[in-house]
Amino acid sequence: MSEKVFDLLIINGKIVSPEGIRENYLAVKDGKIAEEGVNPEGLKATRVIDAKGKYILPGGIDDHVHFRDPGDDLTYKEDALTGSRAAAAGGITTIFDMPNVHPSCLNVKNFEFKKSIYEEKCLVNYGLYAFLVEDPELVEPLMDAGCAGFKWDMGTPDNVLPDHHRMPTNSEAAVAFQKIAARDYCITIHAEDMDLVKFYTAELQKSGRDPKDFLAHEEARPDVVELSAIARSLILSDLTGCRINITHLSSKKGLEMIVDAKRKGSKITCEVGPSWYTFSTDDYPKYGGAIRVVPAIHHPEDRDALWEGLVNGDVDMVGTDHAPHSLEEKFEKSWWDTLPGTIGVQTSLPLILDRANKGQISLERVVEVMSEKPAKVWGLYPRKGCLQVGSDADITIVDMDLEWTVTHAEMKSKTQYTPFDGFQLKGKPVMTIVMGQVAYENGEVVGKPGVGVMVNPKKEW
Amino acid sequence: MSEKVFDLLIINGKIVSPEGIRENYLAVKDGKIAEEGVNPEGLKATRVIDAKGKYILPGGIDDHVHFRDPGDDLTYKEDALTGSRAAAAGGITTIFDMPNVHPSCLNVKNFEFKKSIYEEKCLVNYGLYAFLVEDPELVEPLMDAGCAGFKWDMGTPDNVLPDHHRMPTNSEAAVAFQKIAARDYCITIHAEDMDLVKFYTAELQKSGRDPKDFLAHEEARPDVVELSAIARSLILSDLTGCRINITHLSSKKGLEMIVDAKRKGSKITCEVGPSWYTFSTDDYPKYGGAIRVVPAIHHPEDRDALWEGLVNGDVDMVGTDHAPHSLEEKFEKSWWDTLPGTIGVQTSLPLILDRANKGQISLERVVEVMSEKPAKVWGLYPRKGCLQVGSDADITIVDMDLEWTVTHAEMKSKTQYTPFDGFQLKGKPVMTIVMGQVAYENGEVVGKPGVGVMVNPKKEW
Amino acid sequence: MSEKVFDLLIINGKIVSPEGIRENYLAVKDGKIAEEGVNPEGLKATRVIDAKGKYILPGGIDDHVHFRDPGDDLTYKEDALTGSRAAAAGGITTIFDMPNVHPSCLNVKNFEFKKSIYEEKCLVNYGLYAFLVEDPELVEPLMDAGCAGFKWDMGTPDNVLPDHHRMPTNSEAAVAFQKIAARDYCITIHAEDMDLVKFYTAELQKSGRDPKDFLAHEEARPDVVELSAIARSLILSDLTGCRINITHLSSKKGLEMIVDAKRKGSKITCEVGPSWYTFSTDDYPKYGGAIRVVPAIHHPEDRDALWEGLVNGDVDMVGTDHAPHSLEEKFEKSWWDTLPGTIGVQTSLPLILDRANKGQISLERVVEVMSEKPAKVWGLYPRKGCLQVGSDADITIVDMDLEWTVTHAEMKSKTQYTPFDGFQLKGKPVMTIVMGQVAYENGEVVGKPGVGVMVNPKKEW
Amino acid sequence: MSEKVFDLLIINGKIVSPEGIRENYLAVKDGKIAEEGVNPEGLKATRVIDAKGKYILPGGIDDHVHFRDPGDDLTYKEDALTGSRAAAAGGITTIFDMPNVHPSCLNVKNFEFKKSIYEEKCLVNYGLYAFLVEDPELVEPLMDAGCAGFKWDMGTPDNVLPDHHRMPTNSEAAVAFQKIAARDYCITIHAEDMDLVKFYTAELQKSGRDPKDFLAHEEARPDVVELSAIARSLILSDLTGCRINITHLSSKKGLEMIVDAKRKGSKITCEVGPSWYTFSTDDYPKYGGAIRVVPAIHHPEDRDALWEGLVNGDVDMVGTDHAPHSLEEKFEKSWWDTLPGTIGVQTSLPLILDRANKGQISLERVVEVMSEKPAKVWGLYPRKGCLQVGSDADITIVDMDLEWTVTHAEMKSKTQYTPFDGFQLKGKPVMTIVMGQVAYENGEVVGKPGVGVMVNPKKEW
Ligand SMILES: [Zn+2]
Ligand SMILES: [Zn+2]
Ligand SMILES: [Zn+2]
Ligand SMILES: [Zn+2]
Ligand SMILES: [Zn+2]
Ligand SMILES: [Zn+2]
Ligand SMILES: [Zn+2]
Ligand SMILES: [Zn+2]
Repeated sequence: MSEKVFDLLIINGKIVSPEGIRENYLAVKDGKIAEEGVNPEGLKATRVIDAKGKYILPGGIDDHVHFRDPGDDLTYKEDALTGSRAAAAGGITTIFDMPNVHPSCLNVKNFEFKKSIYEEKCLVNYGLYAFLVEDPELVEPLMDAGCAGFKWDMGTPDNVLPDHHRMPTNSEAAVAFQKIAARDYCITIHAEDMDLVKFYTAELQKSGRDPKDFLAHEEARPDVVELSAIARSLILSDLTGCRINITHLSSKKGLEMIVDAKRKGSKITCEVGPSWYTFSTDDYPKYGGAIRVVPAIHHPEDRDALWEGLVNGDVDMVGTDHAPHSLEEKFEKSWWDTLPGTIGVQTSLPLILDRANKGQISLERVVEVMSEKPAKVWGLYPRKGCLQVGSDADITIVDMDLEWTVTHAEMKSKTQYTPFDGFQLKGKPVMTIVMGQVAYENGEVVGKPGVGVMVNPKKEW
Repeated sequence: MSEKVFDLLIINGKIVSPEGIRENYLAVKDGKIAEEGVNPEGLKATRVIDAKGKYILPGGIDDHVHFRDPGDDLTYKEDALTGSRAAAAGGITTIFDMPNVHPSCLNVKNFEFKKSIYEEKCLVNYGLYAFLVEDPELVEPLMDAGCAGFKWDMGTPDNVLPDHHRMPTNSEAAVAFQKIAARDYCITIHAEDMDLVKFYTAELQKSGRDPKDFLAHEEARPDVVELSAIARSLILSDLTGCRINITHLSSKKGLEMIVDAKRKGSKITCEVGPSWYTFSTDDYPKYGGAIRVVPAIHHPEDRDALWEGLVNGDVDMVGTDHAPHSLEEKFEKSWWDTLPGTIGVQTSLPLILDRANKGQISLERVVEVMSEKPAKVWGLYPRKGCLQVGSDADITIVDMDLEWTVTHAEMKSKTQYTPFDGFQLKGKPVMTIVMGQVAYENGEVVGKPGVGVMVNPKKEW
Repeated sequence: MSEKVFDLLIINGKIVSPEGIRENYLAVKDGKIAEEGVNPEGLKATRVIDAKGKYILPGGIDDHVHFRDPGDDLTYKEDALTGSRAAAAGGITTIFDMPNVHPSCLNVKNFEFKKSIYEEKCLVNYGLYAFLVEDPELVEPLMDAGCAGFKWDMGTPDNVLPDHHRMPTNSEAAVAFQKIAARDYCITIHAEDMDLVKFYTAELQKSGRDPKDFLAHEEARPDVVELSAIARSLILSDLTGCRINITHLSSKKGLEMIVDAKRKGSKITCEVGPSWYTFSTDDYPKYGGAIRVVPAIHHPEDRDALWEGLVNGDVDMVGTDHAPHSLEEKFEKSWWDTLPGTIGVQTSLPLILDRANKGQISLERVVEVMSEKPAKVWGLYPRKGCLQVGSDADITIVDMDLEWTVTHAEMKSKTQYTPFDGFQLKGKPVMTIVMGQVAYENGEVVGKPGVGVMVNPKKEW
Repeated sequence: MSEKVFDLLIINGKIVSPEGIRENYLAVKDGKIAEEGVNPEGLKATRVIDAKGKYILPGGIDDHVHFRDPGDDLTYKEDALTGSRAAAAGGITTIFDMPNVHPSCLNVKNFEFKKSIYEEKCLVNYGLYAFLVEDPELVEPLMDAGCAGFKWDMGTPDNVLPDHHRMPTNSEAAVAFQKIAARDYCITIHAEDMDLVKFYTAELQKSGRDPKDFLAHEEARPDVVELSAIARSLILSDLTGCRINITHLSSKKGLEMIVDAKRKGSKITCEVGPSWYTFSTDDYPKYGGAIRVVPAIHHPEDRDALWEGLVNGDVDMVGTDHAPHSLEEKFEKSWWDTLPGTIGVQTSLPLILDRANKGQISLERVVEVMSEKPAKVWGLYPRKGCLQVGSDADITIVDMDLEWTVTHAEMKSKTQYTPFDGFQLKGKPVMTIVMGQVAYENGEVVGKPGVGVMVNPKKEW
C-alpha cells in the first residue's frame, strides 16, 4: 500500500456551514476536499495550515462583477488579472463577469474570445454571463459554449450593442426564457424601466437641478423604476417557468414584490450589494458621485429593509456589482454623467464579517448568502458553495478578531477608490485558496493566473 | 297654492337598490325623480304608470360600447341613433362610447365634432371617452371639453392613429395619469400586451394552423397577454394614484391579480362583459368568428371565475364592449382576420336578469353591477346609478316573469347578428325612461334623438 | 278625494346616507317615512320642521347598553326610563340592552318580565339580548319570544347566574350556535379569556401593586386575553356558520385577527366604543377608575388602530357599553374592585360628529357605523338604519355648527359622571324622533315612555 | 506515531443529506463519525462495510412512540426492549417516548424511574417526554433531570393522571410555556378539543350508530376538533414565545392554520404520521378498528394535503405515534371503545423510501423529515440528524432496490398487527448503526440493550 500525501491539511479551524460550525481538519488533494476528520494524527501533507482560532468558510462567490475585460477602451479601468487579484484578496474564489465588454458577450465567437482571456489571466474561478438580446436563437449555442447564465440588462440602451442588436421585446424574451428554462439556467436581471428614468431625468434637468447635487440621481430613479421592471420580468418568468434573479435590488417595495411572488411560487431570487445595504440618501452629500450606482441607492428605510432581508432570508444573496471607473469618470461630472458603479469585490466579505462580529448576522447565514446560495442559483452546488468532502477546494480562512481599516491603498483593483475607505472593520480573510492552491496569504496575492476554472451549470470543469 | 302636476307617476312597483327592495311610488318632474312616497293618493301626473308586479331599476349603464359614430367608413356597422335604440330596448339609459372613431377622439376638435353628433342623434345619455395617446398635454383640454374619462387601448396599433399619434410610453403615460388623477377621472384599460399577441399569432400561423379553427384565436392571446398589461398599468396607477378600470377582463389570473392589488390599496376596478361570463373555449367550435372578441374568451374556469367575481363583488361591474361588424367581417375570415367584437348592449341586462331569476345573483347585486358601480367609477353618482329623490329620472322597469327567446331579428342594431340568438330567457325590460321621458315601451323604441345628455364627472348636464 | 295630512314634514335639511347627502323633504305618517320629495309645496302636515342648515340622520343605534332594569339591587344605577332619556338626548333611537339584570335574561319567563318593563318605561326602541348559557335548549324559545340576539359574556363568572346556570363549554356552545345560525340571528361576544385575567390579576396582586395604580388594570388584561377569546369564538362560528359580533373590541391585534378572518370568509363583525377609541394607557393616571372598563383600554397604538378601523371599514360599528355605576363603585376602590364600565349612550353620537367636523371621518361613514351597519347586523334593516320611504321614522337632526362642552350635569342618566366631561365638541343632535314622535328637542327630553317598540330580526313591531 | 484504527469503515455508499448525495467513505470511532473522505485507501478499521449500491442515511428519529414502559398494566403491549428492537429493524436510531406510562412521567421521581428502565433495556437512543400538567413548578426540575421536551396531551382525561393532577388551564399553561421557552425546549401537542369530541360522540351514540361502523369514529372527531386545539395552543405560544409542535397533524385545515401562523412568525412546527398520510375515510370499511387512531384519519383531501405538505416543506417531519395494543383491544370493540393507536416505528422509514422510489419525494427530503428536522426541533442537531464528521454515529444503510412485502410476522413489536400488512414496498433499511455499534443487520436485530443513550437539548450524552 502506497502512502497517501495530501496537498494541504488545514487543522484546528472552525468550519462554517449554514447548518452550523464544526471543528475538524480538512485535507485537500488534487484541487478537491479529500477528507474531513476529527483526528489528523498521522496524516501527511505537503503543507499543513494551522487555523487555530480562525474560521474556515467556503470561498465567497460574487455573481456580479465587471472586470472590463476584454475591451481596449475599457481595460484601463480593470482587467481579469487585477480584478481577480482583488477578489482573491477579498476572500472571493469565484466571480461572475458581466457581458458588457468589447466585443459584447452576446454570441459564441465573442464568448470564446472572452473565455480565452480569462483562462489566461484569471486567478479565481469565473462564470461568464451571456447578454440576453433580441435574438432567441443566440441562447442555446451560448449555453453549449459554457456560459454561466444570462444577463438581461434592462438598463442598457440599444446603441451600446453592436451589429444592430437590441434589447428584446416581451415576445422575444419569452422565447429565450423558454429555452433557458428548458436547461434550468437562470437569468440575472438589472431591473430598471429606462423609459421612466429618461423621463424623470429630463424633468430634473429641465428644473435646473444643480449638476453636483447627487440626491437628484436618486430622484431620477425612484423605486417605481425598479418595480416596473420587476413586474415585467415576473410576468415572463411565470409564463415560461424560467428562473430569474433580480441583481442589485435597491428598494423596499421591490423586495416586497419579490417576497410576494415567492409565496405564490414564482421562480425568483434576489441579491443585494454592500453599497445598497450600507448607504442611503443620507450619504449623497458626503459621497456624491462615488456612490452613484444604478439602480440608485435609495432611502434609509430601503437600505434597512434590504439588510433585514439579507438577515431573515428574504434576500437570497450578496453580489457587489463591482464596476470600476477612473477617478475622473466618477468625480468630474454631473449626477447624470458620472459613470455608475464602484469597486466592491475585495470589501464584500469583510464588510459582512464585521456585521457578524457586531451580532447583526450569524456566520452561518454569512456562508449562505456569500457562498451556498449563489452556488445553488447558478447551478454550481455542491461542487462550489460548500465544504463537503468531494467539493472543489475553494476555501477562505478568516480571522474574526482582526481589526483593521479599509483604505484606498489596500485595494488591488486598478481603480483603487472605494467608498468604504476609512471604515473600521473587525474580521478579515487571511488566506484564500482556489482549487486547492493558495491565492492570497499574509496580505499578499500569491495566486497565479490560470488557476481559476470556468464554471457553469454543466459542471464540466 | 298652485297645484303640483308630475310628469310621470310610477306606482305599485318594487324599487330595487343594492340595499334592498321597497314598494313605493316614484314621481318624476322635469327629468328628475321628484318624489318617493308610500301613498300616491291625491297625486296628479301627466302619465301614471302602473308597475304592478314589475321591478323598477335605476337605468342600466354600459360603460363600453362602440357606436361607430362618427366615421364614414364605420357607420355602416352602427351609428349613434341605431346604437342608442338598441340601448333603450335593452334597458340601458347611459352608454360610454369608445374613441376609436373617425376622426379619432383624441383632441378637443375631434371631441367636439363627436359630441355634436351625439347631441343630435342619441336617444340615451352618453359619456364620450377620450383616447389616451402619447401626448400628455392633450389630457386637460379634453377634460375641460367634457370627456367622460380616458381609454388606454393597449391593443391599438399605432398606425390606426392619425397625425403620427401613437400609444404612450410608460413615462408619457405617467404624466397623463398624474393629470387625470388630479381631477379624479378614471382611465379604462384594454389590457393586452400586443407584442405577446403578435408573437403567439405568428407562431400559430407558422405552424399552419387551420384559419377556420377559432380555438387558435384563444391560443394566440393566452391569459398572460392580459396579465402583462395589467401589471404594467398597475405600476403606473400605484405611482400616480390614478384610478384605472380594467375593461372586458377575461381571465381568472387577471382577476386574482386585481383582487390582490385591491387588498394592497391600489385604485383599480374591473368590468366583465356577458360574452366573457357566458362563453368559453367550449364554444368556439359552434360559434367560430361570432365570438372572436379581444381579449379572447378563455377557458371554462376563467368564465366561471369571472361570473363568480361578479356575484361576490371582486368584479365591479358589467360592460359589454358592444362592437358591431358586418356579417362578412365576422364570418368570412380567418381567426386572425375576423374583426373582433360582437353586439351586446341590448342583451346585457336581460341576460343577467335571467341569471337573477335562476337564483345565481340577487336583483340587488344586479343593480349594483349594472348601474350603481359604473355611475360611481365614472363620477356620475348619485345623479345617475340610483333612484333617489333628486336623481335623474333614468329608470328601467322590468318584468321578471316574462319568458322570451333572443333572436337576431329583435336586435335594434344595424348589425343584428347576436351570439345569444336562441337563448331562452326569463326577465326583460318592458319600459325604459331616459331623463324622465319614455324611450322604450311595449317592445317599441319610442324615444326621440336628442333626449340623452352628455355625462361626465363635472356633472354639468 | 280626501286630503292627505302628514304627521311631520321636515324640510330644507341635508339627508345623510352612506351613499351621500341629498337635500329633499321628508314626510312622516303613522310612525313611518311616508314620502321623500324635492318640492314640499302644497303638502300639509301637523307639524313642519324647518331643518335649514341641519343634517338629517337615521336615528343612532347603540347595540350595547346596560340600563340595569329590572333589578332591585341595580336600578339605583340606571333604569329603562332614565337610560332611554339619555339615549334620546344623544340622538340614539334604538338601544340593545344586555341580559345581566335581575332576574337574568336567560329564559322566556325572565325575558317576558324584562320586556314588560321596557314596554312601560322606554322612550326609545329597544332590542333585548338573551344570555347564552350552557343549555342550548333555551335558545329557540327565546328567539320565539322576541329576543334581539344573544350575548355570550365570556367574562361572566358562573356564580353570577341563577339556578346553577353556567357558561357553555365549546360543545354546548356549538349546539346553540347551530340553532341560532339556522335563523340567522347574531351573537355578540364579550371576548375575554377570564382564566388568563385571573392569572395576571393574581400575579399583580402578589407583586404588591398599588391598588390605586390603574395601569395595573391594563396589565391584568393584556391583549392576549382578548385574542384567546376571539380565537375560540371564531372556531365555533366557522364550524356552525353562525354570525358573531365582537363587542367592545379593544386591541390592534384583535382587529388584525378579525380582518384576517373576514378575508377568509368568517361571519364575524366587530364594534368599538368611544371609550376605547378615545382613551389609552396614557389616560389612566388622570382618570383612574373612571376609565376602568372591560376589556381594558390598551395602548395608544391600539386606540389608533381601532379608530383607523372605524374610518376604513375594518371595524363595523360603534356600540358604547353604556354601563352606569355609582360614584362610590367607580372611585372608592382598587383597580381590581372598581366596577367596570362608564356611561356613554348620550355622548356617542356627539363625539363622532365632532370628529367628522375635524375631517377625521365622513358624515356618510358616521351614518354607516352608527345606524346602517348595526341595523344590518341585528336584522332590522331597512326598517331601521336608513331613511328610506317606508322605513320607521327614527330620525336624528344634528346641528354640525353647534359648539358646546360636555358636562356631568347635562347627562340624563342616573349616574351622571362621564369621563368626557369637559370635552369641547362641535356638532350635536338637536332633535330626536322615535317612531315618528319627537323624543328630544331644544335640549329637553319630551318623549313619552312606551313610544319605543321592541325590535328583533322577526321585524314584528 | 501510533497507528489509527477505526471501529467501522463504510465505503462505496451514497451519503444522503438534505443538500444532496455524495459518494465518500465514512469512518467511525468511539461512537462518532471520525472521518469522511474521498479515498479510503490505507485506512484501518475493525470492520469494513461495503455499501456498494446502497444509500447511507443519518439514522431515523421518531419523536412520537409509546413503548408502554414502565407500567405493570401496560407492558403486555410493548416494552422498551421490544419497542427499540422494532425501531432498530426499521432504521430508527432515536425514539421519543411518551409520558403516559405508569407511573406517569410528570415529576422527577417518576422520570428517573423511567430513565433507569430505558438505560437498561433500550437498544436505540431515547428522548423521554415529560407530561405538561397543571403545575408549572414541575417544569424546571424535569428539564434539569434530562427530559427531552414536553407533551401536552389535550386529549388526556384528567382521571388518567395520579395524585389529583390534571390538564392545565390557559393561565397555568402560560406559566409553564414561559419557563420552557426560557430554555428553548419545545412542547409537542396532541391537538384535540375533547369537549367537542365528547359532544359529537354522544350525538352519534344517541343516534344509534352501529358500533362497528368506524366511519363514525371520524364523524365523532371532525377536523374542527383539531382546529380548536391548535388555535388555543397558538395563542399561548405567541404569548410566551414558546416553541410548539403539533404532533400527528390530521387535517388540511389544520395544516392551513399552521402555515398561516408560520408566515406570521409563530414558533410552530408540525408532524405527520404514516397512518395519516396513507389512509383516509375510504379505508374504514376495510380496516375498521385497526386504523382507529386519534386524531382521526380524515378524508382523502386531508390525507393528500398532509402528504403534499411533507413534500413541499409545510409539514416539518414524520412521527409515527407508534401505539401498540392487544388484538382484543383493537378488534373486539366498538368505534368508541377500541383503543386508539397502531404500531408504526418499524415501517415508517420503509414506507417513505417506497414513495421516494416512486418519485413522490426526494431522498434528500426524506432525510430532512426523518432525521434532520426532528433533530433540530428537539435540540439534538448536529450531534444527531446528520452525518457530519463529529456527529454521533447513528447511521441507517438502505437498499433502495430491495422489493419486499410487509407482514405482521416480520414486526418486532410485542403487538405484531400492522395495517400495512401486505403492502408491497421497494426500499428497506439493511443495516442500522446506533452510536457506532451495529444494531440491525441481515434482517436480525443484533444490538444490545443499553447501547442507546438518553438525548435532550442539554446534549449531555
Ligand atoms: Zn446593473
Ligand atoms: Zn453591473
Ligand atoms: Zn377593447
Ligand atoms: Zn371595445
Ligand atoms: Zn362586556
Ligand atoms: Zn357590557
Ligand atoms: Zn396523541
Ligand atoms: Zn401518541
